[in-house]
Amino acid sequence: MISGSAILGMANAAFAVDPAQLRESAKEHFEVIPSMVPAIEGNAVTREKVDLGKKLFFDPRLSASAIISCNTCHNLGMGGDDNLETSIGHGWQKGPRNAPTVLNAVFNEAQFWDGRAEDLKAQAKGPVQAGVEMASTPERVVTVLNSMPEYVAQFNAAFPGQDDAVTFDNMAMAIEAFEATLITPASRFDQFLEGNDTILTETEMAGLELFIDTGCASCHNGVNVGGTGYYPFGVVEQPGSEILPPDDKGRFAVTQTATDDYVFRAGPLRNIALTAPYFHSGKVWNLEQAVAIMSSSQLGTELNDTEIHAITAFLETLTGEMPRVEYPILPVSSPTTPKPAAMVVN
Amino acid sequence: MISGSAILGMANAAFAVDPAQLRESAKEHFEVIPSMVPAIEGNAVTREKVDLGKKLFFDPRLSASAIISCNTCHNLGMGGDDNLETSIGHGWQKGPRNAPTVLNAVFNEAQFWDGRAEDLKAQAKGPVQAGVEMASTPERVVTVLNSMPEYVAQFNAAFPGQDDAVTFDNMAMAIEAFEATLITPASRFDQFLEGNDTILTETEMAGLELFIDTGCASCHNGVNVGGTGYYPFGVVEQPGSEILPPDDKGRFAVTQTATDDYVFRAGPLRNIALTAPYFHSGKVWNLEQAVAIMSSSQLGTELNDTEIHAITAFLETLTGEMPRVEYPILPVSSPTTPKPAAMVVN
Repeated sequence: MISGSAILGMANAAFAVDPAQLRESAKEHFEVIPSMVPAIEGNAVTREKVDLGKKLFFDPRLSASAIISCNTCHNLGMGGDDNLETSIGHGWQKGPRNAPTVLNAVFNEAQFWDGRAEDLKAQAKGPVQAGVEMASTPERVVTVLNSMPEYVAQFNAAFPGQDDAVTFDNMAMAIEAFEATLITPASRFDQFLEGNDTILTETEMAGLELFIDTGCASCHNGVNVGGTGYYPFGVVEQPGSEILPPDDKGRFAVTQTATDDYVFRAGPLRNIALTAPYFHSGKVWNLEQAVAIMSSSQLGTELNDTEIHAITAFLETLTGEMPRVEYPILPVSSPTTPKPAAMVVN
Repeated sequence: MISGSAILGMANAAFAVDPAQLRESAKEHFEVIPSMVPAIEGNAVTREKVDLGKKLFFDPRLSASAIISCNTCHNLGMGGDDNLETSIGHGWQKGPRNAPTVLNAVFNEAQFWDGRAEDLKAQAKGPVQAGVEMASTPERVVTVLNSMPEYVAQFNAAFPGQDDAVTFDNMAMAIEAFEATLITPASRFDQFLEGNDTILTETEMAGLELFIDTGCASCHNGVNVGGTGYYPFGVVEQPGSEILPPDDKGRFAVTQTATDDYVFRAGPLRNIALTAPYFHSGKVWNLEQAVAIMSSSQLGTELNDTEIHAITAFLETLTGEMPRVEYPILPVSSPTTPKPAAMVVN
């Protein structure tokens, strides 16, 4: 379903969108990214936790090899991911799915492409232990952290009143608190939602209108323009096996429910222009191509080049202000810090 | 040769060092780290170059796999190295020698363990091309950088008046300029040299006196307490093959001169407490053990435990203030950016 004004715009090779009307419609689907760090239920985002979490996020000693940190695959300088098809992990193994961005991940309903982690705290525990990623264990991580007095002191400060603050759970809590600060407010789209009539070009506004009217916003909505709800990749027609590898059945592995075959969490589209390649398979490097694939597989609509260009232009307005992060100075290893286990591939 | 006062100190299990006298002696061997960025001959350290160089230093796309940056092995949060025996590079290959710290490297006479690069500009070109490190080529790097308009603009700003500013040479010049800012002033040792009589403990002062009097300072001197001059590993007696692998003949590979067999640049000892493991082989994780090995192999002196402890305590005063670096937001890849070549191991 394409709206009248968008069609008109296409036909005339010029767009005529009323900003106020479009904003009203957009506000039914999307929310502005707040400029303040969001609260996390059950995990107060304190300064002590954020400082600790930042160190942990950048610390390669959470991996068995001591060369892979959270930031390796969720690079804060590169849109919060690694810009690879799928990540490279311990022993140069190739991961199964494209690394999602950590930016604004706090706003997602659940984490991972299949939503198997209910929050960032649960998520943080996954890659640390995954044999193809960081290949460590909770026991090893706790031993590593306990070997450095500076970490022990920081855990005690971040989790006051606990007898044994250096735990794998608290590691995850601190990382979650830091990640809650990794939000990207003030994108041009947000400024439009906030009332700026001239911040978007005619093409970008036409793209937003198309994004709503063709049905993209049925799945990609909310503050993250996605990241909530699960949908089959191929609502209308499955894409080829190159893009949707038959072996990865998505959420089926989580729920063991036949209707979850090839079901994935709707991708959050914030900063999407920074995080090529696309889809869980990471097989598509071009954003316009990704839009075209989505429209045919999810909507059964064959958009023309002008429409694809306009939607892509809109998506590019979702790039926000990147968080400013001072690179942390990490605690020094001590004689009791476990030695890197680089050459042992799990 | 151990000085009288140090001997006395050992005997009495208490040290009696005159700070003013010790300072006078120390100033004959060492220099304070300046608090200002040093000038580099032929490469003006401009703001534009430093900003560009910082991005390049952190950009994994300088490697063929797009996951290894300069910072991977010269981690600014971990003393400017990777705290590994030898680095892990492209395809999970193990490098031949321990990664030296990038901190204060601008003060070294030459770069690499064998001094084969005359400056940081020449050094920066090495790992980018090394098959076991970043495994890229000058041509690929230039193509990568030219594919991103933001990089092109930054090269033009950093190297004004050049027709074709995006070159492999200019990449190295910018990285050198950034690395010149990676200095660590204000260590307690520097504060002592500057006139603070109470900043070092008696043990640390005794260690400094021993460091001078036993002869350590004959090779480890100057602003970096090393990093100038070449010496055989084993002036008096070669250590075992575990620590000095027979296949790595050090500077011999550079000069093809028999007298350079197993000759290496004297290790710069600034921030040495942060950069275990030690020696070009990275086989020694404990600083006291490293001191003991040096004293027997280089000086022919068997220091007792108290002396080794004191020298180690002095070495720990060489830890300075780490540079504060805001993690850079990197230019976005474009459709013409070469795809990562992760799985092709050279």
